[in-house]
Amino acid sequence: MAITEKVRTILGWYESDNPGTKGNLVRMLMQGKLAGTGKLVILPVDQGFEHGPARSFAANPAGYDPRYHFQLAIDAGLSAYAAPLGMLEAGAAEFAGQIPTILKMNSSNSLATEKDQAVTASIADALRLGCSAIGFTIYPGSEYCFAQMEELRELAEEAKAAGLVVVVWSYPRGPLLDKAGETALDICAYAAHMAALAGAHIIKVKPPTDKLSLPAAIKVYEEQHIPRATMAERIAHVVQCCFAGRRLVVFSGGDNVKDTDSFIATIQQIADGGASGAIVGRNSFQRPRDEALAMLGRIVDIYAKA
Amino acid sequence: MAITEKVRTILGWYESDNPGTKGNLVRMLMQGKLAGTGKLVILPVDQGFEHGPARSFAANPAGYDPRYHFQLAIDAGLSAYAAPLGMLEAGAAEFAGQIPTILKMNSSNSLATEKDQAVTASIADALRLGCSAIGFTIYPGSEYCFAQMEELRELAEEAKAAGLVVVVWSYPRGPLLDKAGETALDICAYAAHMAALAGAHIIKVKPPTDKLSLPAAIKVYEEQHIPRATMAERIAHVVQCCFAGRRLVVFSGGDNVKDTDSFIATIQQIADGGASGAIVGRNSFQRPRDEALAMLGRIVDIYAKA
Amino acid sequence: MAITEKVRTILGWYESDNPGTKGNLVRMLMQGKLAGTGKLVILPVDQGFEHGPARSFAANPAGYDPRYHFQLAIDAGLSAYAAPLGMLEAGAAEFAGQIPTILKMNSSNSLATEKDQAVTASIADALRLGCSAIGFTIYPGSEYCFAQMEELRELAEEAKAAGLVVVVWSYPRGPLLDKAGETALDICAYAAHMAALAGAHIIKVKPPTDKLSLPAAIKVYEEQHIPRATMAERIAHVVQCCFAGRRLVVFSGGDNVKDTDSFIATIQQIADGGASGAIVGRNSFQRPRDEALAMLGRIVDIYAKA
Amino acid sequence: MAITEKVRTILGWYESDNPGTKGNLVRMLMQGKLAGTGKLVILPVDQGFEHGPARSFAANPAGYDPRYHFQLAIDAGLSAYAAPLGMLEAGAAEFAGQIPTILKMNSSNSLATEKDQAVTASIADALRLGCSAIGFTIYPGSEYCFAQMEELRELAEEAKAAGLVVVVWSYPRGPLLDKAGETALDICAYAAHMAALAGAHIIKVKPPTDKLSLPAAIKVYEEQHIPRATMAERIAHVVQCCFAGRRLVVFSGGDNVKDTDSFIATIQQIADGGASGAIVGRNSFQRPRDEALAMLGRIVDIYAKA
Amino acid sequence: MAITEKVRTILGWYESDNPGTKGNLVRMLMQGKLAGTGKLVILPVDQGFEHGPARSFAANPAGYDPRYHFQLAIDAGLSAYAAPLGMLEAGAAEFAGQIPTILKMNSSNSLATEKDQAVTASIADALRLGCSAIGFTIYPGSEYCFAQMEELRELAEEAKAAGLVVVVWSYPRGPLLDKAGETALDICAYAAHMAALAGAHIIKVKPPTDKLSLPAAIKVYEEQHIPRATMAERIAHVVQCCFAGRRLVVFSGGDNVKDTDSFIATIQQIADGGASGAIVGRNSFQRPRDEALAMLGRIVDIYAKA
Repeated sequence: MAITEKVRTILGWYESDNPGTKGNLVRMLMQGKLAGTGKLVILPVDQGFEHGPARSFAANPAGYDPRYHFQLAIDAGLSAYAAPLGMLEAGAAEFAGQIPTILKMNSSNSLATEKDQAVTASIADALRLGCSAIGFTIYPGSEYCFAQMEELRELAEEAKAAGLVVVVWSYPRGPLLDKAGETALDICAYAAHMAALAGAHIIKVKPPTDKLSLPAAIKVYEEQHIPRATMAERIAHVVQCCFAGRRLVVFSGGDNVKDTDSFIATIQQIADGGASGAIVGRNSFQRPRDEALAMLGRIVDIYAKA
Repeated sequence: MAITEKVRTILGWYESDNPGTKGNLVRMLMQGKLAGTGKLVILPVDQGFEHGPARSFAANPAGYDPRYHFQLAIDAGLSAYAAPLGMLEAGAAEFAGQIPTILKMNSSNSLATEKDQAVTASIADALRLGCSAIGFTIYPGSEYCFAQMEELRELAEEAKAAGLVVVVWSYPRGPLLDKAGETALDICAYAAHMAALAGAHIIKVKPPTDKLSLPAAIKVYEEQHIPRATMAERIAHVVQCCFAGRRLVVFSGGDNVKDTDSFIATIQQIADGGASGAIVGRNSFQRPRDEALAMLGRIVDIYAKA
Repeated sequence: MAITEKVRTILGWYESDNPGTKGNLVRMLMQGKLAGTGKLVILPVDQGFEHGPARSFAANPAGYDPRYHFQLAIDAGLSAYAAPLGMLEAGAAEFAGQIPTILKMNSSNSLATEKDQAVTASIADALRLGCSAIGFTIYPGSEYCFAQMEELRELAEEAKAAGLVVVVWSYPRGPLLDKAGETALDICAYAAHMAALAGAHIIKVKPPTDKLSLPAAIKVYEEQHIPRATMAERIAHVVQCCFAGRRLVVFSGGDNVKDTDSFIATIQQIADGGASGAIVGRNSFQRPRDEALAMLGRIVDIYAKA
Repeated sequence: MAITEKVRTILGWYESDNPGTKGNLVRMLMQGKLAGTGKLVILPVDQGFEHGPARSFAANPAGYDPRYHFQLAIDAGLSAYAAPLGMLEAGAAEFAGQIPTILKMNSSNSLATEKDQAVTASIADALRLGCSAIGFTIYPGSEYCFAQMEELRELAEEAKAAGLVVVVWSYPRGPLLDKAGETALDICAYAAHMAALAGAHIIKVKPPTDKLSLPAAIKVYEEQHIPRATMAERIAHVVQCCFAGRRLVVFSGGDNVKDTDSFIATIQQIADGGASGAIVGRNSFQRPRDEALAMLGRIVDIYAKA
Repeated sequence: MAITEKVRTILGWYESDNPGTKGNLVRMLMQGKLAGTGKLVILPVDQGFEHGPARSFAANPAGYDPRYHFQLAIDAGLSAYAAPLGMLEAGAAEFAGQIPTILKMNSSNSLATEKDQAVTASIADALRLGCSAIGFTIYPGSEYCFAQMEELRELAEEAKAAGLVVVVWSYPRGPLLDKAGETALDICAYAAHMAALAGAHIIKVKPPTDKLSLPAAIKVYEEQHIPRATMAERIAHVVQCCFAGRRLVVFSGGDNVKDTDSFIATIQQIADGGASGAIVGRNSFQRPRDEALAMLGRIVDIYAKA
């Protein structure tokens, strides 16, 4: 299928990248129901590391099998599937070529006491598994952040040279940030901007609240009257902070929610703000498959019309 | 000998691995009395590092000689023999080709004060000694866990590229876990799952108790009514947490016990839960050779019928 | 364009460097309105890392787009444009060959609590992006300074071998220095000298105050009657401390100021002291483009006549 | 000279090693007055690092000259000479081929405050100096022990690949051990066993006392009635703990003593216990050369008859 | 010029070194007014790093220019010139082949709070700048000493393989040493000995006082009646501790002194003790050039007659 004008425009943002990386971007942007729209919906399944297997999969035990998630992403017409090494190893051959995969390179876990992550995969792993991209989490504000950024630098350099796409999860936390600060607008925008500066092709952040956190930033937000009353305004600001919208920025759907309609409403507001797409994990795979497909269908529809 | 359907099914779980690794899996699954059954009984002798030589071998002094254990594993019809570098160096040539060996890559010791291990061997060592697999211990929950996982990542990547199998011993310990927590069901399942996510081919954990430890997990276990009253139920849960049973999971037989019948009864329950096999060290080599062969024979019989 | 006598003299200072590095020095010294004068005005845009995106760009939102700064540096007739990895990736192809670029290799951020920086780019990045130079910040006096110098050593060695120019930002801070000490004359001169000793081709420091900080240095400054009453005298001293003026030394224009005339007056004094040029970030790109071009024009004029 | 049956038997213990390493073992076992007996007496001169030059050599100033020790080892008919880098560099060419040398790879010193050592030589150094072996010290129980074991792993792997022999000095110390614990029988046997597990070809420990230290070990020593009343019994136990005597184990002669006869008597008891030989430093080179030769002659005689 | 018998003897001390290193030793020993005498006078200019530029050069501002020191060393007929990377880069081409240079590889500074140094150059740097030797400082007794020795090991190994000479500055400091201890005879001799053991070709220490510091050493110095009343006796002891005089040992002239005659008298005593030469920095380049040449002439004369 020939690429669309929208995809061609997006490729123009990544003017420094080699044809290999451009090819993998195209692979994701031309996949599934959103092919050619310039939008992405990604299924991430790394919650087994973060929360453990039962908290992740007991609600819908089919999800214990890694192959379930490949199939869910394919059947829902999503753009890509992201997971840690073992999860991809357990299905990469069977589903080869059917859905672009993102190898999640580092992970934390609920038994750990440090605000760090372990790197559990390599670029060679991503290549042998046929992945289109690597995913890497940084914790801006953490005492490990400089070290994480240096790990990212090494992996991203090697990934780009190998023609892979680099997706960065940027989750603020650390001594200067309280719980509200972690999702404050200025912090979320700063975290997204740092991911862009570090060379991310695709940036994943949480939807910001209307709070502000850093005193020096509060002054600027108020003086410059940066709009932040609605979610759409806040999303627009975060997108602007990613090189004036010249980077793909995807958002999670917020915390695990039971009320599908309000969840979908939030997704709509995020899309209205100009987000490049959604990344939806627990809210999809913890539901029965039919419900999950229905809900993912609604999200895809929102972005198809965005 | 042609592989059986059961072994062929298991190889299917490891679809991402190269023929070298598949070949070494076959070597273990087609070895000894359990050849072709899809089950494994492994003899591990790394207690000299962990507890010192006298505590390990004085009860049956023949065990001071590394060759004793190769012969014991062969004569008992076991699937593989696992030991640290020096133990394998001292018999690998004499017993070459007679029993698959697992080079235990890291070890702790009773004189150490940190919850860490030293890496005492390399992939080049495993290859020159003709091993089929490497073994590596992680301590989920320990302050060294991220570093251990990163050591595992490097060794596992190199091992897989060289066609070796990766066996991970996953032993939870650390600041968030008390003694009961280390063998609680949720923790044991989580530890097994993390080993799978990190890319282990074979996972070794301790049999879990019916306790639960992490508050956020307790809620889920209770809401979802995950059965845990019997050992078989608990084992089934751990196996499910290893990619819905698509990874080989082996269990130790519990603490060093004097009462053989109750020990064997526990092994039976573990096998009933769907375990892939047993890994039995001190409970075998600290007995006189005849008794050890008899007991290992009973364990092998259980798995032959499982 | 043939190089001028002034540029030829400057190249003589860098007698140990290879033709590649000499060529990139020429590229910067023969660029823009100051071509051939032996002076440099550089636009640095790394404030997004240091202060966050809104504090950097909200005042002039055109600056959210990385391409804005390439164009500003070109249109103002500047010598070079310096920025972190992501900022250069987002424009390096479009503006290839139009303005020499300096890849800023390390950066701190306002969420961090350590006086360190993360290295976020590599020499391979600088080469693939067609950069003429790398930029690296050290914090003399910080507990991370030895480590930073060793990072600089590695990057500078690789950069020089690849024919790149090495620009060092030398910003004193740390346990022995209070706020006034960080810009004291003896400290500023010491910081500049250490950058020269570490092998910098171009040194960037802040304009010093007339204060002195280290007791052992105060004694010498007073005994030797080193002039420091005027900014020009202080600049002359810093330049002398960089191998008797045989290294290019550029100065920032002081803190973010609203009063353009007094800012320009300071630049004039710095130029009078024998500075090799100016490096002006926020004071240019936070103004509307016309005002920025006018102000940069005045700075360029000062150095054209220096 | 053809190797003897005893040496052939010993080579059989090292069945995993390449012909290069076997050749260097033969070189040591076929050197000097003990050639062919399967026993070794080694002269180590690393006390300059540990205690400083005057404490090491002032008693017999001829020893300040590194060449003195090569000649002493040769004239006394010893099996090998062990020393740090500088000591070997200062005589390796003059005495090339006359005595096997062991390059001591790491050393501590009396000015240091950490229970660690610095690695001061490389395998490339050992090879260019024509050494037959490397020597490496570990401190089981020290907080640096895991790191030391990992240094040993790297060096030993490279040494074995290059055909060198690996000699490990295993000296217990650290938070769990008081002064008596460092030489307690269970600790000494454990330290020797860990060196064997880590892949040492030759193990050097101190002669153990009849004390026991670790509570869990005391229980086993008492229940199993492991004999420890005489030095010979204790040595026999340590040798058994080194793979049932299938590793060469050499012992120092105890602390620096003035009374030669009691020193020799201890050596006799150690030999009676089945030790592979002695390693005697200060007790030889701090005496006048004639006395040293006489005493080394008595030690050699003991092992010739052992 | 054919080498002299004295130089031939010295080369014999370095029997393990390759022809490249021997050639660079000859270059230094056959340079300037002391050519062929077996003695060395070296000009070191690394005080800019240690004390800052004004404290180093304001007294004689010609010294701000790196070329001044090359010329001073040449005109004074010295054996070699030692300086950090930037200082050599700024003159190495102009003075190529006129004076052997020693690249000082690591440096501390007065703003730092740790008893460590930063490595600021590489062997590749030494080779591209045409150096004959590298210089490296260790702080025996410092908590960083093991790390420094390991840095030295890596650099020295690479330097020797590349045919360079290794000069070690050995300056004791750390928790066990008070100010007097740093220059005590036993400590100075120990520091020099450790540099020799670590493989130094040329050792630089401070002239020792008649104090003793380590209790265990005091006992030996007193029992063995090691002479230490005169500077010449103390120097002779330090030289003996460097492999019985088979390593080149050079001494600084003590603290910065105003009284030239007493300074020269100390140099004479050091030479009388058998030192291989002097290394004189601030005491030469902080004087007017004529005075410096006169004083260096007196030092050279002393060693010419030694």
